[in-house]
Amino acid sequence: MTAQSFFKEPAGLTVGEISALTGAKPREGAKLDRTIRGIAALDRARASDLAFFESTKYLDQLAATRAAVCLTTERFAGRVPPSITVLLTKEPFRDFVMVARKLYPDSLRPRSMFGIEVTAPGAHVHATAEIEDGVTIDPGAVIGPRAGIGAGTVIGPNAVIGPDVQIGRDCSVGPGASIMHAFIGDNVILHAGCRIGQDGFRYHPSAQGHVKVPQLGRVIIQDSVEIGANTTIDRGGAGDTVIGEGTKIDNLVHIGHNCLVGRHCVIAGQCGFAGSVVLGDHVVMGGQAGIADHLTIGEGAMIGAKSGVVSNIPAGERWLGFPAMPGHEFLRATAALRKRI
Amino acid sequence: MTAQSFFKEPAGLTVGEISALTGAKPREGAKLDRTIRGIAALDRARASDLAFFESTKYLDQLAATRAAVCLTTERFAGRVPPSITVLLTKEPFRDFVMVARKLYPDSLRPRSMFGIEVTAPGAHVHATAEIEDGVTIDPGAVIGPRAGIGAGTVIGPNAVIGPDVQIGRDCSVGPGASIMHAFIGDNVILHAGCRIGQDGFRYHPSAQGHVKVPQLGRVIIQDSVEIGANTTIDRGGAGDTVIGEGTKIDNLVHIGHNCLVGRHCVIAGQCGFAGSVVLGDHVVMGGQAGIADHLTIGEGAMIGAKSGVVSNIPAGERWLGFPAMPGHEFLRATAALRKRI
Amino acid sequence: MTAQSFFKEPAGLTVGEISALTGAKPREGAKLDRTIRGIAALDRARASDLAFFESTKYLDQLAATRAAVCLTTERFAGRVPPSITVLLTKEPFRDFVMVARKLYPDSLRPRSMFGIEVTAPGAHVHATAEIEDGVTIDPGAVIGPRAGIGAGTVIGPNAVIGPDVQIGRDCSVGPGASIMHAFIGDNVILHAGCRIGQDGFRYHPSAQGHVKVPQLGRVIIQDSVEIGANTTIDRGGAGDTVIGEGTKIDNLVHIGHNCLVGRHCVIAGQCGFAGSVVLGDHVVMGGQAGIADHLTIGEGAMIGAKSGVVSNIPAGERWLGFPAMPGHEFLRATAALRKRI
Repeated sequence: MTAQSFFKEPAGLTVGEISALTGAKPREGAKLDRTIRGIAALDRARASDLAFFESTKYLDQLAATRAAVCLTTERFAGRVPPSITVLLTKEPFRDFVMVARKLYPDSLRPRSMFGIEVTAPGAHVHATAEIEDGVTIDPGAVIGPRAGIGAGTVIGPNAVIGPDVQIGRDCSVGPGASIMHAFIGDNVILHAGCRIGQDGFRYHPSAQGHVKVPQLGRVIIQDSVEIGANTTIDRGGAGDTVIGEGTKIDNLVHIGHNCLVGRHCVIAGQCGFAGSVVLGDHVVMGGQAGIADHLTIGEGAMIGAKSGVVSNIPAGERWLGFPAMPGHEFLRATAALRKRI
Repeated sequence: MTAQSFFKEPAGLTVGEISALTGAKPREGAKLDRTIRGIAALDRARASDLAFFESTKYLDQLAATRAAVCLTTERFAGRVPPSITVLLTKEPFRDFVMVARKLYPDSLRPRSMFGIEVTAPGAHVHATAEIEDGVTIDPGAVIGPRAGIGAGTVIGPNAVIGPDVQIGRDCSVGPGASIMHAFIGDNVILHAGCRIGQDGFRYHPSAQGHVKVPQLGRVIIQDSVEIGANTTIDRGGAGDTVIGEGTKIDNLVHIGHNCLVGRHCVIAGQCGFAGSVVLGDHVVMGGQAGIADHLTIGEGAMIGAKSGVVSNIPAGERWLGFPAMPGHEFLRATAALRKRI
Repeated sequence: MTAQSFFKEPAGLTVGEISALTGAKPREGAKLDRTIRGIAALDRARASDLAFFESTKYLDQLAATRAAVCLTTERFAGRVPPSITVLLTKEPFRDFVMVARKLYPDSLRPRSMFGIEVTAPGAHVHATAEIEDGVTIDPGAVIGPRAGIGAGTVIGPNAVIGPDVQIGRDCSVGPGASIMHAFIGDNVILHAGCRIGQDGFRYHPSAQGHVKVPQLGRVIIQDSVEIGANTTIDRGGAGDTVIGEGTKIDNLVHIGHNCLVGRHCVIAGQCGFAGSVVLGDHVVMGGQAGIADHLTIGEGAMIGAKSGVVSNIPAGERWLGFPAMPGHEFLRATAALRKRI
């Protein structure tokens, strides 16, 4: 692995332990007591690292790798140099990730940035806040009246938790993030500088200018959600803004008021949702895409990067472009246009 | 209204009081002493809520609503079930908003996130700062030398106000926001994490690399402006960057140095302005739109979402697309392209 | 210059000193002891200001200017009114910038926002952090275990420096910025709210939902880089994310994990890089452009604003549009499309 990693040097795992963890089978003659101290891509691996191989694109790297152990499939096992211990599996990358997670448990969610496991003296916790045992609060964090924080959760330096906000267990709130008018489930990761629960963007025009429409709702973030750095999620106007269980949102995304985002969606960087968008489960969005207000995106739909969606998208379809259209139409339109040049 | 709202349960208003407040007229036989405890859309209303009706699209909801009182027009009054008290008005939604603002005064601008109305012990206020009476400063906020803050203003937790910055009265600065080289008017709302007054982006190429061009100007934010979470507004290079009175800017917008944004504009999320853009009054921009440098957008122009503006736009026109063009041209071009497929 | 600038009124420079500084030659008869107290564009100059002239576009402003001294070329010298002292140079704007930098040294990088040159009492510095002499740490800043900060560096209010992070000399970290898993060179400017080193966005799909892939790498920021407000740069997954020497990045840009950005690039506001993009040296990107993952952009390439790059770009080429294509093709395609209307 990278020299001078910011993570603790792992204790290591033997080939036998990796096999037990992942179910991968050692090739005949493998040394089960060989110890792995890190993981790496083939071309970066040191002599104590585990690597994986699952695509012929990297055959050259495989031939030259210094890795000690390699996860690969039956089909490719013959390509691995004989000096390397081989672990056979149907899903080399999945198993590689499983080992990485075991070796680097601190990487699974951000920890205290002050190296503590208590409430730092420099944190500002309101007397009425309800902090379970086993919460870490870094210096400069501010916890408002009646806020509740569950065991195992880490609140980063200078993060702000507003009045009455409830945060579940084993969550991680990044440095400088702010959360208000929100309920947060368990195992949620909110990265640095993300903004949860501020006013939605709605005004009523009048002769005296734009009149602010009260934003009375909340943000509900379900279990196992991850939200990227400097992403903004506005609270609902009347109802709630909801982010469904297991959904992953990248950096600098904007989600407007009253959006209902389904479960296990993946939303890449700088996407934007106008208000009241409904996103089904398992939707995938490429970066810098946008969705106009009050639209419904069906379960499992895929929206290409930079698309501008101005109509509903049926479940399971792949759309692209601006205005977004089914992917094959977009590709044909683009080809037709380039022929006209 | 939403159960478990983060706002205080309102004291309530009688039908008579609502009529006095809005000018809406009770239908014959209305019970003027009936008390409303909240507001809600027709389909979410509880038996103590006020709702409104102004579009036949929601006729089904009207028939089934549990709302106690409904604002509607003369034209639709007959459609309201007899058990519901009707208030007649020309602008149901406007009056609904007026009632919401009365019932939830805390929603009109963000309040202290620490439940205080003073300077918190954990705030860092420079000895030379001039803080009027009646200012709230939450824990962790930093107020620099000679900064001035007007009465009624709330500075959120961990917000940073730089040297010599002047902020008017009854403003709200969100958690973690930073303001430097800026003058801010009255009744301004700056949401969490917005960045006001840092260096504009200008360099002079040289053999030794890009040489930073000093950014000597300021940011001027006029009265009643609202600026969204994590939005960035750079200060002027030589002159100023100005945001005109009553203009509303959403989250994650970028406004470059020397931009002059008019009054009462509405700028949706993730829009971007290169330097020295001049925006007339009452301009409306959809989300993720961008404007190239040194362009002038006429008063009342509308720019569609995701547009990329590379030429001036005359007053009152509606432009769309990239490169942006008058909206009807864009729609015809898009239609022509799709026919070619 | 702007009245009420936030910078100290400069001591001033004589025409002779400006000549010595820049190499510009006073026109015959010029008063070498005339003193300049500020700089300004022709139309904004006061009677004690230096201005410059290098384009006939501003002839009217030249005729009417109140500036005391004007930098211009031999070719244009005859156009300058006789009352104005003329300094002759081949590069008027370059010399103007040089004078501005001399007059306003505080503008070259952000200084303490609390007017100090020490560690503020309200800062939270871990006992094991290694802070060189001559470091300024503003109130509310948090410096984690074993972090190192070089002489001359300013850490803004409420900025957060994570464990083991190393920051070089003469850097400036803006208010509320956060840095983790990163090594930062010398003379680096990180503006307010930028987020360096959080987890990259990668998951492995499974029946139990998206499994987080450990992000074990770092962010390396080389000397003289400048990074805009609220910009996010994720750390590498296995290797590192690198920003090359002298590169300038504007506000609200997103740079994904494992990107290798070359030296002396200029990246405008709201650009986005998916993971593992390789950018050669001297690449220029307009605002709101995006680059898909694993692409390579050749040295000196220019990418137009709002472009969506989905293929490699050869060195030195200028690409535009979505999907991005060579600029002349895009312009012809756009023209062809508009003719079809």
